[in-house]
Amino acid sequence: MSAAPDVSQLGSCPIRVGAYDRVVKGHGSGGRLSQELLESVFLRGLGNPVLQRQEDAATLAPAPGRLAVTTDAFVVHPAFFPGGDIGSLAVHGTVNDLAVAGAVPRYLIASFILEEGLLLSDLARVVASMRAACERAGVQLVAGDTKVVEKGKGDQLFITTTGVGWVPEGRSLSIASARPGDRLLLSGTLGDHGIAILSVREGLTFETEIRSDSAPLNSLTSMLLELSPEIRCMRDPTRGGLASTLNELAAASAVGVEIDEAALPIRPEVRAACELLGLDPLHVANEGKLVAVVPAERAEATLAAARAHPQGREAALIGEVVAAHPKRVTMRSVVGGTRLVSMLAGEQLPRIC
Amino acid sequence: MSAAPDVSQLGSCPIRVGAYDRVVKGHGSGGRLSQELLESVFLRGLGNPVLQRQEDAATLAPAPGRLAVTTDAFVVHPAFFPGGDIGSLAVHGTVNDLAVAGAVPRYLIASFILEEGLLLSDLARVVASMRAACERAGVQLVAGDTKVVEKGKGDQLFITTTGVGWVPEGRSLSIASARPGDRLLLSGTLGDHGIAILSVREGLTFETEIRSDSAPLNSLTSMLLELSPEIRCMRDPTRGGLASTLNELAAASAVGVEIDEAALPIRPEVRAACELLGLDPLHVANEGKLVAVVPAERAEATLAAARAHPQGREAALIGEVVAAHPKRVTMRSVVGGTRLVSMLAGEQLPRIC
Repeated sequence: MSAAPDVSQLGSCPIRVGAYDRVVKGHGSGGRLSQELLESVFLRGLGNPVLQRQEDAATLAPAPGRLAVTTDAFVVHPAFFPGGDIGSLAVHGTVNDLAVAGAVPRYLIASFILEEGLLLSDLARVVASMRAACERAGVQLVAGDTKVVEKGKGDQLFITTTGVGWVPEGRSLSIASARPGDRLLLSGTLGDHGIAILSVREGLTFETEIRSDSAPLNSLTSMLLELSPEIRCMRDPTRGGLASTLNELAAASAVGVEIDEAALPIRPEVRAACELLGLDPLHVANEGKLVAVVPAERAEATLAAARAHPQGREAALIGEVVAAHPKRVTMRSVVGGTRLVSMLAGEQLPRIC
Repeated sequence: MSAAPDVSQLGSCPIRVGAYDRVVKGHGSGGRLSQELLESVFLRGLGNPVLQRQEDAATLAPAPGRLAVTTDAFVVHPAFFPGGDIGSLAVHGTVNDLAVAGAVPRYLIASFILEEGLLLSDLARVVASMRAACERAGVQLVAGDTKVVEKGKGDQLFITTTGVGWVPEGRSLSIASARPGDRLLLSGTLGDHGIAILSVREGLTFETEIRSDSAPLNSLTSMLLELSPEIRCMRDPTRGGLASTLNELAAASAVGVEIDEAALPIRPEVRAACELLGLDPLHVANEGKLVAVVPAERAEATLAAARAHPQGREAALIGEVVAAHPKRVTMRSVVGGTRLVSMLAGEQLPRIC
């Protein structure tokens, strides 16, 4: 459902730029080596008419509506993991931030910070993965930049992606707009991305491989907003997990939030891994899920529509917005009783995205 | 003329976020510590109505014309240098890429990659410098992101700034549009930024302190394009220096370029430093200069206008576009004879911006 494109065959094919098969400081000089890297890896891998012009700024035709912009730095470690890599993640993460804001994502802009010594074949594999992810999400990469830092002053590669899109006229989602009575729709299972990363990092193996849920959500959001323009707002619960997202919502809208533990979709293997590692799945990052705040009367129809979409097959109504305990999130436990759900307090999973 | 705002007093004032005076991994968790860092440093330092909303994407009213976007990662080392710092540089560099493309810069989006252990007071100083630079350039910072990497996996801080602006209707600059007979206008002295950085890095002292020329060029470009809409294109000769910019121009327009060594404005102390360090000033980075390709009949009037502007006081006509030797750049030397000017070939000055 959210499988990353297969770019593994590229990894085994060494790539040379001039005399080099690894990134050297000169690739960041702005001179001839930079130009060679641009042509051999970036333009070849991503090439499209706007990039080929190599102007200092890309100029683009506007569309009707308000402009939406968002940015994210991606420093995920390791850069390759089950279900994706730093390249597809950088595309999906930024596409999703636009999508949950109600925007139609159109353009991406990417900046790369490369550590001296990075294998050019790894870079090419990431670039190929970005291109495939852009095609899948229907966005175009229109501008970029590359810098090189000395060995030991970075960690292979960091990517910052900025997204530009258009919010259609009349659409205005805001996390300050939740009202008591609204229902909370979660588009699928919790914790897959965080646990997939952690499994690789810690060398854990499970009976079933846990794959990242990294995927673009713009097709799902576009369908949901078309069907239910009454949706108050949407968020993707990435770093900090669902708990942090719901706390932000409760604070911004000055409402209470109540969720049902029994309603939360969590894969058995993710639940088992969380128990083993002492993690709360509510704090674990997701990279292909969203929470929508939906007026009660539209909740069932919106859920049915989400479930009919490939990115929403396991969608569930997980709770509601209440007037009681404003700015606090609580959870009714499966064994009875209610507990406070707080934002992630410590570090838990550094470099998860 | 291009003095950086004085934010030095902030450097001596320790800042705490919760229990911390330095960046810790938890500041990148997406949870409570991330929120505290956002509020204490970023919103306090940069705060404006769009950022305060804390939505996943900022939505902005469009302006007439074509949309222009550009991005740059800034990894300059050291982060503080005479005439600026990584924060003001990140604002100016991105504003200038929009400005030389003929766009009116409007919005910036910034992503920060922080190394664990970075002093929060240094971060606050950079943020204050960014705010001052934004105000000077007339742009607004509307969205951002922060990630934290472990000690030894970064180098204090990296900033990626993406700029969004609008190209007025009917304006279309392109580095593919230079024609034989066009004159080349350089807006001021060469090499100041690169030599300023290198002086700090190598601990060199000169009789006169060499300061970076880092400055926003949008007021200058806007005035020049208003006066001389016939300008074919503009570029800012940053990494790789004037030599790399002119080679890119010659290649993109399939023309020859000839410059006069005697016409190049270079400060005596920069010239002396270049001789001492064995550097060609044509390869040294600038961060507040532009080259404009101007039809011959508009050259003198454009020069006079540039010289009347604070960012163009030392502007000069430095050469011309020729039909001979397409895709090559040559220089008539002060002692007679002509030499080929090639792109920067090696690394020369890593992490100059």
